[in-house]
Amino acid sequence: MAGAIEREINRDIEPKFGLVVQKYGGSSVATPEKIQNVASRVEARVETGAKMIVVVSAMGKTTDGLIAMAKQVSQNPFPREMDMLLATGEQVSAALLAMALLERGVKAVSRNAFQLGIVTSENYNNARIRDIDLSRLIRDLTDNSVVVVTGFQGVTPDGDLTTLGRGGSDTSAVALAAKAANAPDALWDSVVCEIYSDVSGIFAADPNKVKGARKLDYITHIEMLELASLGAKVLHMRSVEVARRYGVTLYCASTFSEERGTYVVKELPEWLESPVVTGVTVARNQIKFVVRRIPESGNALAGIFQALAVADVNIDMISTVTDEGLSYLSFTTIDAAAPAVIEAVSSCMREFECGKTGWEIGNGTQVAKVSAVGDGMNATKGVAGRAFSALRGANIKMLDISTSDINISVLVDESSADSAVEALVKEFGLVANAGE
Amino acid sequence: MAGAIEREINRDIEPKFGLVVQKYGGSSVATPEKIQNVASRVEARVETGAKMIVVVSAMGKTTDGLIAMAKQVSQNPFPREMDMLLATGEQVSAALLAMALLERGVKAVSRNAFQLGIVTSENYNNARIRDIDLSRLIRDLTDNSVVVVTGFQGVTPDGDLTTLGRGGSDTSAVALAAKAANAPDALWDSVVCEIYSDVSGIFAADPNKVKGARKLDYITHIEMLELASLGAKVLHMRSVEVARRYGVTLYCASTFSEERGTYVVKELPEWLESPVVTGVTVARNQIKFVVRRIPESGNALAGIFQALAVADVNIDMISTVTDEGLSYLSFTTIDAAAPAVIEAVSSCMREFECGKTGWEIGNGTQVAKVSAVGDGMNATKGVAGRAFSALRGANIKMLDISTSDINISVLVDESSADSAVEALVKEFGLVANAGE
Repeated sequence: MAGAIEREINRDIEPKFGLVVQKYGGSSVATPEKIQNVASRVEARVETGAKMIVVVSAMGKTTDGLIAMAKQVSQNPFPREMDMLLATGEQVSAALLAMALLERGVKAVSRNAFQLGIVTSENYNNARIRDIDLSRLIRDLTDNSVVVVTGFQGVTPDGDLTTLGRGGSDTSAVALAAKAANAPDALWDSVVCEIYSDVSGIFAADPNKVKGARKLDYITHIEMLELASLGAKVLHMRSVEVARRYGVTLYCASTFSEERGTYVVKELPEWLESPVVTGVTVARNQIKFVVRRIPESGNALAGIFQALAVADVNIDMISTVTDEGLSYLSFTTIDAAAPAVIEAVSSCMREFECGKTGWEIGNGTQVAKVSAVGDGMNATKGVAGRAFSALRGANIKMLDISTSDINISVLVDESSADSAVEALVKEFGLVANAGE
Repeated sequence: MAGAIEREINRDIEPKFGLVVQKYGGSSVATPEKIQNVASRVEARVETGAKMIVVVSAMGKTTDGLIAMAKQVSQNPFPREMDMLLATGEQVSAALLAMALLERGVKAVSRNAFQLGIVTSENYNNARIRDIDLSRLIRDLTDNSVVVVTGFQGVTPDGDLTTLGRGGSDTSAVALAAKAANAPDALWDSVVCEIYSDVSGIFAADPNKVKGARKLDYITHIEMLELASLGAKVLHMRSVEVARRYGVTLYCASTFSEERGTYVVKELPEWLESPVVTGVTVARNQIKFVVRRIPESGNALAGIFQALAVADVNIDMISTVTDEGLSYLSFTTIDAAAPAVIEAVSSCMREFECGKTGWEIGNGTQVAKVSAVGDGMNATKGVAGRAFSALRGANIKMLDISTSDINISVLVDESSADSAVEALVKEFGLVANAGE
């Protein structure tokens, strides 16, 4: 099958990295034993000559425990104090990992957000990193220390502690790598940011649904953002955005095995022929609405989207067709109450005095969106045709279609979602040993 | 009985304090419920118009739990990393208390050692506070916030976290009070440092041993240092030393009741007639050695103390008598192995060629040291005589006696210790309702 073999890695020309930023999530440092395991992995890597920054999350369920205590003293814990509280979790794991490394004779030092000058915005609980003062980090690395960094946290310019929200430790790691990669006169030739979790990499389709789904050796940042659901348990998408913006190479693999993981890169290596489709993903629980006979004139269509935004309805896939002065609109929403959507559209239609066109809105039907994503799509003709043929061949009814340069999305009945994924995965060779 | 009634407080002229530094120990903040209790106490105090700094320890057994984890990753945890680890405990309780206060509508902000600029020496695990930058604290207090401070911790000039050793949170509180008391242009007229624990104050004798032992309303810093064992569960003596040096008034009371506690002051209030004896304490497990016929010439006596210091033997009470060119020495040690003491003394005697005097050392006998302490002793004649008469009247054999301006100590057989304390306590009126 096309696209399958190209993703095999060429181990001889695998890049060597000067500076390695590793991130270990909560499950990787959940117990002192697991911290020992991380220490042994770091030690092995140091022995290859890499300079290392290791970003850690709080141990296991520590953060949940702290939140539970906060709820016992306050119904709505003050955000600044919540961050002061939560920031302790990462400091515990950073100190323990540094101890474990020192015990093995590996020079190491733990650093928190104060010490590293990780400056953030002031929106507590969900702060954004503004800058990182690299001077301390460079001093530590020059000193040949492994720098163990508390993930998930920063400080405001005024010295208050902040936390970065869900997936914050990934963001810490990627931001450090981005800053280091763009540092002037750096001590390293290249930078990689490795994100370790209990998942072994990014798969071309959900391995729990698609038997034999291929693990990818490489995926581009853009593909990863389009295939967010395939990376959900591995990478926080905010950190992928940061990696994309600063051109940081990510690597995702399991903490608990030596199995090969997945590189998330700006561009695929030149020696790797770009596959047509990299992955197939499905978004369930979408509700599809159809609005018929909207007058083309008077901005009524734009009015609908504004009314839905005011009603806090998130819209995903949109299709419109206009014919003889009347527009037909189809859109999907996620987790929105159908009556609220219908009410928002209706009141907008009244406002625009659309009564005379005999407009109407359907009740909303439950659908699934199946997407095939690939950077190579725009350079290859007939990809959409292949996708549609494959779906038709599997007797799947396509409700709506939307395409972009690297994405083909099709709405299907929720009951057909699994067979639609299966058809596309087979068509584009994303299953290991499938007919090769 | 003399000395009893004078310790009753004159509540009408009780001083009012502008700045209140409170310290709550681990048992006072052990659970979210107990933190609520502390918050309600702080709230009540704020309502009296006091400006407040509240220093907290880690919750309950948190520190022990962190140490146990450290031991699981390292046999000898690196001291710098140990402090990074342990400092999290106080940050958790400070954040929770600030939340609890804010929930009650009391303006509050938690501050850690970084934020307050509590600069210490670099001896991790047992650092000494060098200075505190009051500017942030004054800003917070001017803002009418209760400042909730992480006890037990500081930062080195280079920004590493340190901890202050056992009783460190007491030291943090007293140091903040001392710095505030001596601040130029302060916002407050007066400063008091209140130490809360699960003990209701300082007693004139161990209340577990002496039924009805009187709780003191006042005690001087010097008396407290001499009576360390009576304050052991209430106050760390290092913090009393700091308080004495900077003239900080301490107040010790229970977190869990409104019962009146004890003020530890530089000088007793003028209206309070100074009692002769403030408290009686006993040190058990002392071993008394006697060395006989040491030649007076040749510095052999000094040699013995040097030899014992080299052998790491702590010496407590010393008595010497010299007669016809020969010295007789008696000293006590605590927790030292008798054979080590005998060997150190013997080798010193050999070195000084003392063989011809027929010197000898006894085997060491278990004794107790009973001490009566009082600032008023040096202004009152016949105190020693009263003490010795009382002991003789109770048929207690006095083995050795040592006196200073404010302390009379007597060695007795360990079995007589309790009756010796009882005799002195009665003689100096330190038991409530005893013959009044």
